[in-house]
Amino acid sequence: MATISVVKQVLDANDRIARSNRALFNQKGVYVINLMSSPGAGKTTLVERTIEGLKDRYRIAVIEGDIQDTYDAERVAKLGIPVVQINTGGGCHIDANMVQEALADLPIDGVDLLINENVGNLVCPAEFKIGENDKVMILSTPEGADKPSKYPLMFHESSVLLINKMDLMPYVSFDLKKARADALKCNPHLKIFEVSCKTNEGLSAWLTWISDRIEQFKQTRS
Amino acid sequence: MATISVVKQVLDANDRIARSNRALFNQKGVYVINLMSSPGAGKTTLVERTIEGLKDRYRIAVIEGDIQDTYDAERVAKLGIPVVQINTGGGCHIDANMVQEALADLPIDGVDLLINENVGNLVCPAEFKIGENDKVMILSTPEGADKPSKYPLMFHESSVLLINKMDLMPYVSFDLKKARADALKCNPHLKIFEVSCKTNEGLSAWLTWISDRIEQFKQTRS
Repeated sequence: MATISVVKQVLDANDRIARSNRALFNQKGVYVINLMSSPGAGKTTLVERTIEGLKDRYRIAVIEGDIQDTYDAERVAKLGIPVVQINTGGGCHIDANMVQEALADLPIDGVDLLINENVGNLVCPAEFKIGENDKVMILSTPEGADKPSKYPLMFHESSVLLINKMDLMPYVSFDLKKARADALKCNPHLKIFEVSCKTNEGLSAWLTWISDRIEQFKQTRS
Repeated sequence: MATISVVKQVLDANDRIARSNRALFNQKGVYVINLMSSPGAGKTTLVERTIEGLKDRYRIAVIEGDIQDTYDAERVAKLGIPVVQINTGGGCHIDANMVQEALADLPIDGVDLLINENVGNLVCPAEFKIGENDKVMILSTPEGADKPSKYPLMFHESSVLLINKMDLMPYVSFDLKKARADALKCNPHLKIFEVSCKTNEGLSAWLTWISDRIEQFKQTRS
Protein backbone atom coordinates (compact mmCIF):
# COMPACT_ATOMS: atom_id res chain seq x y z
CA MET A 1 0.00 0.00 0.00
CA ALA A 2 2.86 2.39 0.87
CA THR A 3 4.41 1.87 -2.55
CA ILE A 4 1.14 2.55 -4.33
CA SER A 5 0.58 5.86 -2.58
CA VAL A 6 4.13 7.00 -3.44
CA VAL A 7 3.50 6.30 -7.11
CA LYS A 8 0.26 8.29 -6.91
CA GLN A 9 2.11 11.24 -5.39
CA VAL A 10 4.70 11.18 -8.16
CA LEU A 11 1.99 11.18 -10.82
CA ASP A 12 0.07 14.00 -9.15
CA ALA A 13 3.19 16.15 -8.88
CA ASN A 14 3.99 15.39 -12.52
CA ASP A 15 0.46 16.31 -13.60
CA ARG A 16 0.70 19.65 -11.80
CA ILE A 17 3.95 20.53 -13.58
CA ALA A 18 2.55 19.27 -16.91
CA ARG A 19 -0.41 21.66 -16.51
CA SER A 20 2.00 24.48 -15.79
CA ASN A 21 4.03 23.62 -18.92
CA ARG A 22 0.78 23.47 -20.93
CA ALA A 23 -0.27 26.93 -19.70
CA LEU A 24 3.11 28.33 -20.77
CA PHE A 25 2.86 26.67 -24.21
CA ASN A 26 -0.68 28.06 -24.67
CA GLN A 27 0.46 31.54 -23.71
CA LYS A 28 3.38 31.38 -26.16
CA GLY A 29 1.34 29.70 -28.92
CA VAL A 30 3.51 26.60 -29.11
CA TYR A 31 1.95 23.34 -30.36
CA VAL A 32 3.72 20.45 -28.63
CA ILE A 33 4.08 16.75 -29.39
CA ASN A 34 5.46 13.95 -27.21
CA LEU A 35 7.06 11.36 -29.53
CA MET A 36 7.35 7.83 -28.18
CA SER A 37 8.35 4.34 -29.38
CA SER A 38 10.50 1.30 -28.66
CA PRO A 39 14.26 1.76 -28.96
CA GLY A 40 15.28 1.90 -32.61
CA ALA A 41 11.82 2.32 -34.15
CA GLY A 42 12.93 5.52 -35.90
CA LYS A 43 12.02 8.47 -33.66
CA THR A 44 15.05 10.64 -34.47
CA THR A 45 14.79 9.95 -38.20
CA LEU A 46 11.10 10.95 -38.09
CA VAL A 47 12.11 14.16 -36.27
CA GLU A 48 14.64 14.86 -39.04
CA ARG A 49 12.08 14.22 -41.83
CA THR A 50 9.46 16.35 -40.05
CA ILE A 51 11.89 19.24 -39.67
CA GLU A 52 12.93 18.97 -43.34
CA GLY A 53 9.25 18.96 -44.39
CA LEU A 54 8.03 21.84 -42.20
CA LYS A 55 10.94 24.15 -41.46
CA ASP A 56 10.13 26.53 -44.34
CA ARG A 57 6.60 27.03 -42.95
CA TYR A 58 7.07 26.85 -39.19
CA ARG A 59 9.62 27.65 -36.50
CA ILE A 60 10.51 24.40 -34.79
CA ALA A 61 12.36 23.51 -31.57
CA VAL A 62 13.25 20.07 -30.20
CA ILE A 63 13.83 18.51 -26.78
CA GLU A 64 15.71 15.20 -26.96
CA GLY A 65 15.31 12.70 -24.12
CA ASP A 66 17.97 10.01 -23.66
CA ILE A 67 19.38 8.10 -20.72
CA GLN A 68 22.81 9.43 -21.60
CA ASP A 69 24.72 10.88 -24.61
CA THR A 70 23.87 13.70 -27.02
CA TYR A 71 23.89 11.84 -30.37
CA ASP A 72 20.24 12.56 -31.20
CA ALA A 73 20.53 16.25 -30.26
CA GLU A 74 23.60 16.53 -32.49
CA ARG A 75 21.63 15.08 -35.42
CA VAL A 76 18.89 17.70 -34.90
CA ALA A 77 21.34 20.57 -34.37
CA LYS A 78 22.86 19.82 -37.80
CA LEU A 79 19.53 20.89 -39.33
CA GLY A 80 19.87 24.34 -37.75
CA ILE A 81 17.09 23.76 -35.21
CA PRO A 82 17.28 24.88 -31.53
CA VAL A 83 17.60 21.71 -29.44
CA VAL A 84 18.14 20.82 -25.79
CA GLN A 85 19.20 17.38 -24.58
CA ILE A 86 17.67 15.88 -21.44
CA ASN A 87 19.82 13.10 -19.97
CA THR A 88 17.66 11.08 -17.60
CA GLY A 89 20.64 9.31 -16.02
CA GLY A 90 19.01 5.88 -16.06
CA GLY A 91 15.40 7.06 -16.02
CA CYS A 92 13.23 5.30 -18.59
CA HIS A 93 11.07 8.28 -19.62
CA ILE A 94 11.03 12.07 -19.60
CA ASP A 95 8.63 13.82 -17.23
CA ALA A 96 7.07 17.28 -16.94
CA ASN A 97 9.74 18.53 -14.56
CA MET A 98 12.58 17.58 -16.92
CA VAL A 99 10.83 19.42 -19.76
CA GLN A 100 10.29 22.47 -17.52
CA GLU A 101 14.00 22.52 -16.71
CA ALA A 102 14.94 22.04 -20.37
CA LEU A 103 12.84 25.11 -21.29
CA ALA A 104 15.25 27.25 -19.27
CA ASP A 105 17.80 26.60 -22.02
CA LEU A 106 15.39 26.65 -24.97
CA PRO A 107 13.82 29.97 -26.01
CA ILE A 108 10.30 29.21 -27.30
CA ASP A 109 9.13 32.74 -28.14
CA GLY A 110 7.88 32.56 -31.74
CA VAL A 111 8.19 28.77 -31.91
CA ASP A 112 5.23 27.09 -33.66
CA LEU A 113 6.09 23.44 -33.01
CA LEU A 114 8.00 21.87 -30.13
CA ILE A 115 8.86 18.19 -30.61
CA ASN A 116 9.80 16.21 -27.49
CA GLU A 117 11.53 12.93 -28.37
CA ASN A 118 11.06 10.59 -25.41
CA VAL A 119 13.36 7.79 -24.21
CA GLY A 120 12.94 4.61 -26.28
CA ASN A 121 10.42 2.61 -24.25
CA LEU A 122 6.94 1.33 -25.11
CA VAL A 123 5.74 1.32 -21.49
CA CYS A 124 6.43 4.14 -19.01
CA PRO A 125 6.56 7.25 -21.25
CA ALA A 126 2.80 6.84 -21.85
CA GLU A 127 2.14 7.38 -18.12
CA PHE A 128 3.82 10.78 -17.76
CA LYS A 129 2.30 13.91 -19.30
CA ILE A 130 4.75 16.67 -20.15
CA GLY A 131 2.31 19.40 -21.26
CA GLU A 132 1.90 18.11 -24.82
CA ASN A 133 -1.03 18.72 -27.17
CA ASP A 134 -0.65 15.28 -28.74
CA LYS A 135 1.17 12.07 -28.02
CA VAL A 136 2.53 10.54 -31.22
CA MET A 137 3.92 7.00 -31.33
CA ILE A 138 5.89 4.91 -33.80
CA LEU A 139 5.65 1.15 -34.27
CA SER A 140 8.20 -0.27 -36.73
CA THR A 141 7.39 -3.32 -38.84
CA PRO A 142 10.27 -5.53 -37.53
CA GLU A 143 8.80 -5.27 -34.01
CA GLY A 144 5.78 -7.38 -34.96
CA ALA A 145 2.02 -6.89 -35.06
CA ASP A 146 1.43 -8.12 -31.50
CA LYS A 147 2.56 -4.86 -29.91
CA PRO A 148 -0.88 -3.21 -29.53
CA SER A 149 -2.04 -6.27 -27.56
CA LYS A 150 1.10 -6.32 -25.43
CA TYR A 151 1.58 -2.59 -24.76
CA PRO A 152 -1.97 -1.19 -25.00
CA LEU A 153 -1.56 1.95 -22.88
CA MET A 154 0.69 3.79 -25.34
CA PHE A 155 -1.70 3.02 -28.22
CA HIS A 156 -4.60 4.16 -26.02
CA GLU A 157 -2.92 7.46 -25.09
CA SER A 158 -1.62 8.43 -28.53
CA SER A 159 -3.40 10.61 -31.11
CA VAL A 160 -1.28 9.24 -33.95
CA LEU A 161 0.38 5.91 -34.75
CA LEU A 162 3.07 5.96 -37.42
CA ILE A 163 3.78 2.45 -38.71
CA ASN A 164 7.39 2.95 -39.78
CA LYS A 165 9.91 0.92 -41.82
CA MET A 166 7.26 -0.03 -44.39
CA ASP A 167 10.23 -0.56 -46.76
CA LEU A 168 11.07 -3.70 -44.73
CA MET A 169 7.63 -5.30 -45.27
CA PRO A 170 8.94 -7.81 -47.88
CA TYR A 171 11.55 -9.08 -45.39
CA VAL A 172 9.63 -9.28 -42.11
CA SER A 173 6.45 -11.14 -41.20
CA PHE A 174 4.39 -8.14 -40.09
CA ASP A 175 0.60 -8.57 -40.17
CA LEU A 176 -0.38 -5.01 -41.08
CA LYS A 177 -4.12 -5.70 -40.96
CA LYS A 178 -3.88 -7.18 -37.46
CA ALA A 179 -1.64 -4.36 -36.20
CA ARG A 180 -4.10 -1.74 -37.47
CA ALA A 181 -7.15 -3.58 -36.09
CA ASP A 182 -5.59 -4.20 -32.66
CA ALA A 183 -4.31 -0.62 -32.41
CA LEU A 184 -7.83 0.65 -33.14
CA LYS A 185 -9.21 -1.69 -30.45
CA CYS A 186 -6.91 0.11 -27.95
CA ASN A 187 -8.01 3.47 -29.30
CA PRO A 188 -10.78 3.88 -31.92
CA HIS A 189 -9.74 7.53 -32.47
CA LEU A 190 -6.14 6.68 -33.35
CA LYS A 191 -5.00 8.20 -36.65
CA ILE A 192 -2.70 5.72 -38.43
CA PHE A 193 -0.10 6.52 -41.09
CA GLU A 194 2.01 3.90 -42.87
CA VAL A 195 5.42 5.43 -43.56
CA SER A 196 9.05 4.78 -44.34
CA CYS A 197 11.48 7.40 -43.12
CA LYS A 198 14.04 5.74 -45.42
CA THR A 199 12.09 6.04 -48.71
CA ASN A 200 9.82 8.92 -47.54
CA GLU A 201 6.75 6.78 -48.43
CA GLY A 202 3.64 8.09 -46.70
CA LEU A 203 5.33 11.03 -45.00
CA SER A 204 3.35 13.72 -46.83
CA ALA A 205 0.12 12.56 -45.13
CA TRP A 206 1.84 12.82 -41.73
CA LEU A 207 3.17 16.31 -42.56
CA THR A 208 -0.32 17.40 -43.63
CA TRP A 209 -1.79 16.07 -40.37
CA ILE A 210 0.68 17.89 -38.15
CA SER A 211 0.39 21.14 -40.18
CA ASP A 212 -3.38 20.96 -39.76
CA ARG A 213 -2.99 20.46 -36.00
CA ILE A 214 -0.66 23.46 -35.73
CA GLU A 215 -3.17 25.62 -37.66
CA GLN A 216 -6.13 24.39 -35.57
CA PHE A 217 -4.17 25.22 -32.41
CA LYS A 218 -3.44 28.72 -33.67
CA GLN A 219 -7.15 29.25 -34.45
CA THR A 220 -8.33 28.14 -30.99
CA ARG A 221 -6.02 30.76 -29.51
CA SER A 222 -7.10 33.67 -31.74
CA MET B 1 15.47 12.95 -1.29
CA ALA B 2 12.37 11.08 -0.08
CA THR B 3 11.84 9.62 -3.56
CA ILE B 4 15.43 8.38 -3.74
CA SER B 5 15.21 6.50 -0.45
CA VAL B 6 11.96 4.82 -1.53
CA VAL B 7 13.63 3.54 -4.70
CA LYS B 8 16.50 2.20 -2.59
CA GLN B 9 14.05 0.36 -0.34
CA VAL B 10 12.31 -1.22 -3.31
CA LEU B 11 15.60 -2.46 -4.71
CA ASP B 12 16.74 -3.84 -1.34
CA ALA B 13 13.48 -5.74 -0.88
CA ASN B 14 13.79 -7.08 -4.41
CA ASP B 15 17.39 -8.16 -3.81
CA ARG B 16 16.37 -10.07 -0.68
CA ILE B 17 13.69 -12.00 -2.58
CA ALA B 18 16.08 -12.56 -5.50
CA ARG B 19 18.59 -14.15 -3.10
CA SER B 20 15.84 -16.35 -1.72
CA ASN B 21 14.87 -17.43 -5.26
CA ARG B 22 18.55 -18.09 -6.03
CA ALA B 23 18.90 -20.29 -2.94
CA LEU B 24 15.88 -22.33 -4.04
CA PHE B 25 17.23 -22.69 -7.59
CA ASN B 26 20.62 -23.83 -6.21
CA GLN B 27 18.95 -26.38 -3.96
CA LYS B 28 16.88 -27.76 -6.85
CA GLY B 29 19.76 -27.62 -9.36
CA VAL B 30 18.00 -25.24 -11.76
CA TYR B 31 20.14 -23.02 -14.00
CA VAL B 32 18.20 -19.80 -14.65
CA ILE B 33 18.38 -17.09 -17.29
CA ASN B 34 16.70 -13.70 -17.40
CA LEU B 35 16.04 -12.85 -21.07
CA MET B 36 15.69 -9.17 -21.91
CA SER B 37 15.36 -6.94 -25.00
CA SER B 38 13.37 -4.16 -26.62
CA PRO B 39 9.82 -5.02 -27.69
CA GLY B 40 9.88 -7.12 -30.86
CA ALA B 41 13.59 -8.01 -30.88
CA GLY B 42 12.75 -11.71 -30.94
CA LYS B 43 12.73 -12.97 -27.33
CA THR B 44 9.89 -15.49 -27.69
CA THR B 45 11.27 -16.83 -30.97
CA LEU B 46 14.66 -17.33 -29.31
CA VAL B 47 12.92 -19.17 -26.46
CA GLU B 48 11.24 -21.42 -29.04
CA ARG B 49 14.52 -22.13 -30.87
CA THR B 50 16.34 -22.79 -27.58
CA ILE B 51 13.65 -25.24 -26.46
CA GLU B 52 13.74 -27.02 -29.85
CA GLY B 53 17.55 -27.27 -29.64
CA LEU B 54 17.83 -28.45 -26.03
CA LYS B 55 14.64 -30.27 -25.06
CA ASP B 56 16.05 -33.71 -25.89
CA ARG B 57 18.98 -33.14 -23.50
CA TYR B 58 17.46 -31.03 -20.72
CA ARG B 59 14.21 -30.51 -18.88
CA ILE B 60 13.14 -26.92 -19.46
CA ALA B 61 10.55 -24.63 -17.87
CA VAL B 62 9.58 -21.09 -18.82
CA ILE B 63 8.18 -18.01 -17.06
CA GLU B 64 6.72 -15.46 -19.48
CA GLY B 65 6.51 -11.82 -18.40
CA ASP B 66 4.09 -9.52 -20.19
CA ILE B 67 2.07 -6.48 -19.23
CA GLN B 68 -1.08 -8.35 -20.23
CA ASP B 69 -2.17 -11.30 -22.42
CA THR B 70 -0.90 -14.90 -22.66
CA TYR B 71 0.18 -15.07 -26.31
CA ASP B 72 3.83 -15.83 -25.56
CA ALA B 73 2.99 -18.47 -22.96
CA GLU B 74 0.67 -20.14 -25.48
CA ARG B 75 3.51 -20.29 -28.03
CA VAL B 76 5.75 -22.00 -25.45
CA ALA B 77 3.02 -24.37 -24.23
CA LYS B 78 2.60 -25.64 -27.81
CA LEU B 79 6.13 -27.08 -27.52
CA GLY B 80 5.05 -29.21 -24.53
CA ILE B 81 7.04 -27.16 -22.02
CA PRO B 82 5.71 -26.19 -18.55
CA VAL B 83 5.09 -22.43 -18.60
CA VAL B 84 3.60 -19.81 -16.31
CA GLN B 85 2.53 -16.35 -17.44
CA ILE B 86 3.22 -13.31 -15.27
CA ASN B 87 0.99 -10.36 -16.16
CA THR B 88 2.55 -7.22 -14.68
CA GLY B 89 -0.60 -5.15 -15.18
CA GLY B 90 1.25 -2.12 -16.55
CA GLY B 91 4.60 -2.82 -14.87
CA CYS B 92 7.55 -2.46 -17.23
CA HIS B 93 9.66 -5.37 -15.88
CA ILE B 94 9.36 -8.57 -13.87
CA ASP B 95 10.83 -8.59 -10.37
CA ALA B 96 11.94 -11.26 -7.88
CA ASN B 97 8.59 -11.29 -6.07
CA MET B 98 6.64 -11.96 -9.28
CA VAL B 99 8.97 -14.86 -10.09
CA GLN B 100 8.59 -16.22 -6.55
CA GLU B 101 4.80 -16.15 -6.94
CA ALA B 102 4.99 -17.76 -10.40
CA LEU B 103 6.99 -20.65 -8.91
CA ALA B 104 3.93 -21.61 -6.85
CA ASP B 105 2.34 -22.72 -10.15
CA LEU B 106 5.48 -24.11 -11.81
CA PRO B 107 7.01 -27.35 -10.46
CA ILE B 108 10.79 -27.08 -10.87
CA ASP B 109 11.86 -30.41 -9.37
CA GLY B 110 14.09 -32.03 -11.99
CA VAL B 111 14.16 -28.94 -14.20
CA ASP B 112 17.63 -28.19 -15.62
CA LEU B 113 16.93 -24.84 -17.27
CA LEU B 114 14.42 -22.13 -16.34
CA ILE B 115 14.05 -19.34 -18.88
CA ASN B 116 12.42 -16.10 -17.69
CA GLU B 117 11.31 -13.92 -20.59
CA ASN B 118 11.10 -10.36 -19.31
CA VAL B 119 8.80 -7.55 -20.48
CA GLY B 120 10.07 -5.90 -23.68
CA ASN B 121 12.07 -2.93 -22.37
CA LEU B 122 15.73 -2.02 -22.74
CA VAL B 123 15.86 -0.02 -19.49
CA CYS B 124 14.25 -1.16 -16.22
CA PRO B 125 14.50 -4.98 -16.43
CA ALA B 126 18.29 -4.64 -16.04
CA GLU B 127 17.82 -3.09 -12.58
CA PHE B 128 15.83 -5.93 -11.00
CA LYS B 129 17.45 -9.26 -10.17
CA ILE B 130 15.11 -12.24 -10.10
CA GLY B 131 17.53 -14.93 -8.87
CA GLU B 132 19.04 -15.70 -12.27
CA ASN B 133 22.47 -17.20 -13.01
CA ASP B 134 22.84 -15.13 -16.18
CA LYS B 135 21.16 -12.18 -17.79
CA VAL B 136 20.93 -12.67 -21.56
CA MET B 137 19.93 -9.84 -23.90
CA ILE B 138 18.93 -9.53 -27.53
CA LEU B 139 19.62 -6.57 -29.82
CA SER B 140 18.01 -6.86 -33.26
CA THR B 141 19.63 -5.31 -36.31
CA PRO B 142 16.68 -3.00 -37.25
CA GLU B 143 17.06 -1.25 -33.86
CA GLY B 144 20.39 0.28 -34.88
CA ALA B 145 23.96 0.13 -33.62
CA ASP B 146 23.61 3.09 -31.25
CA LYS B 147 21.80 1.07 -28.58
CA PRO B 148 24.85 0.15 -26.42
CA SER B 149 25.65 3.87 -26.11
CA LYS B 150 22.05 4.77 -25.33
CA TYR B 151 21.09 1.92 -22.98
CA PRO B 152 24.42 0.90 -21.41
CA LEU B 153 23.17 -0.69 -18.19
CA MET B 154 21.57 -3.72 -19.85
CA PHE B 155 24.73 -4.39 -21.86
CA HIS B 156 26.77 -3.96 -18.68
CA GLU B 157 24.64 -6.40 -16.70
CA SER B 158 24.30 -9.14 -19.31
CA SER B 159 26.55 -12.19 -19.75
CA VAL B 160 25.45 -12.69 -23.35
CA LEU B 161 24.38 -10.43 -26.20
CA LEU B 162 22.57 -12.08 -29.09
CA ILE B 163 22.56 -9.84 -32.16
CA ASN B 164 19.37 -11.11 -33.80
CA LYS B 165 17.73 -10.67 -37.21
CA MET B 166 21.07 -11.00 -39.02
CA ASP B 167 18.95 -12.04 -42.05
CA LEU B 168 17.83 -8.38 -42.30
CA MET B 169 21.41 -7.02 -42.58
CA PRO B 170 21.10 -6.37 -46.35
CA TYR B 171 18.01 -4.21 -45.77
CA VAL B 172 18.92 -2.16 -42.70
CA SER B 173 21.85 0.16 -42.02
CA PHE B 174 23.24 -1.63 -38.97
CA ASP B 175 26.92 -1.00 -38.19
CA LEU B 176 27.83 -4.41 -36.78
CA LYS B 177 31.42 -3.45 -35.98
CA LYS B 178 30.31 -0.38 -34.02
CA ALA B 179 27.58 -2.32 -32.16
CA ARG B 180 30.07 -4.99 -31.11
CA ALA B 181 32.74 -2.47 -30.08
CA ASP B 182 30.33 -0.26 -28.10
CA ALA B 183 28.73 -3.28 -26.39
CA LEU B 184 32.19 -4.45 -25.30
CA LYS B 185 32.93 -0.95 -23.98
CA CYS B 186 29.89 -1.35 -21.69
CA ASN B 187 31.04 -4.82 -20.70
CA PRO B 188 34.40 -6.31 -21.78
CA HIS B 189 33.26 -9.79 -20.63
CA LEU B 190 30.14 -9.82 -22.81
CA LYS B 191 29.86 -12.92 -25.00
CA ILE B 192 28.39 -11.93 -28.38
CA PHE B 193 26.59 -14.23 -30.85
CA GLU B 194 25.29 -13.10 -34.24
CA VAL B 195 22.11 -15.04 -34.97
CA SER B 196 18.93 -15.20 -36.97
CA CYS B 197 16.04 -16.99 -35.32
CA LYS B 198 14.39 -16.98 -38.76
CA THR B 199 17.17 -18.81 -40.70
CA ASN B 200 18.77 -20.44 -37.59
CA GLU B 201 22.12 -18.85 -38.55
CA GLY B 202 24.50 -18.79 -35.59
CA LEU B 203 22.14 -20.54 -33.17
CA SER B 204 24.34 -23.62 -32.67
CA ALA B 205 27.03 -21.48 -30.98
CA TRP B 206 24.39 -20.07 -28.61
CA LEU B 207 23.05 -23.56 -27.83
CA THR B 208 26.61 -24.77 -27.11
CA TRP B 209 27.19 -21.81 -24.77
CA ILE B 210 24.03 -22.40 -22.75
CA SER B 211 24.63 -26.19 -22.59
CA ASP B 212 28.14 -25.51 -21.26
CA ARG B 213 26.72 -23.16 -18.63
CA ILE B 214 24.17 -25.74 -17.50
CA GLU B 215 26.92 -28.37 -17.21
CA GLN B 216 29.25 -25.98 -15.33
CA PHE B 217 26.42 -25.18 -12.92
CA LYS B 218 25.78 -28.89 -12.30
CA GLN B 219 29.51 -29.42 -11.59
CA THR B 220 29.72 -26.57 -9.07
CA ARG B 221 26.86 -28.23 -7.15
CA SER B 222 28.28 -31.77 -7.14
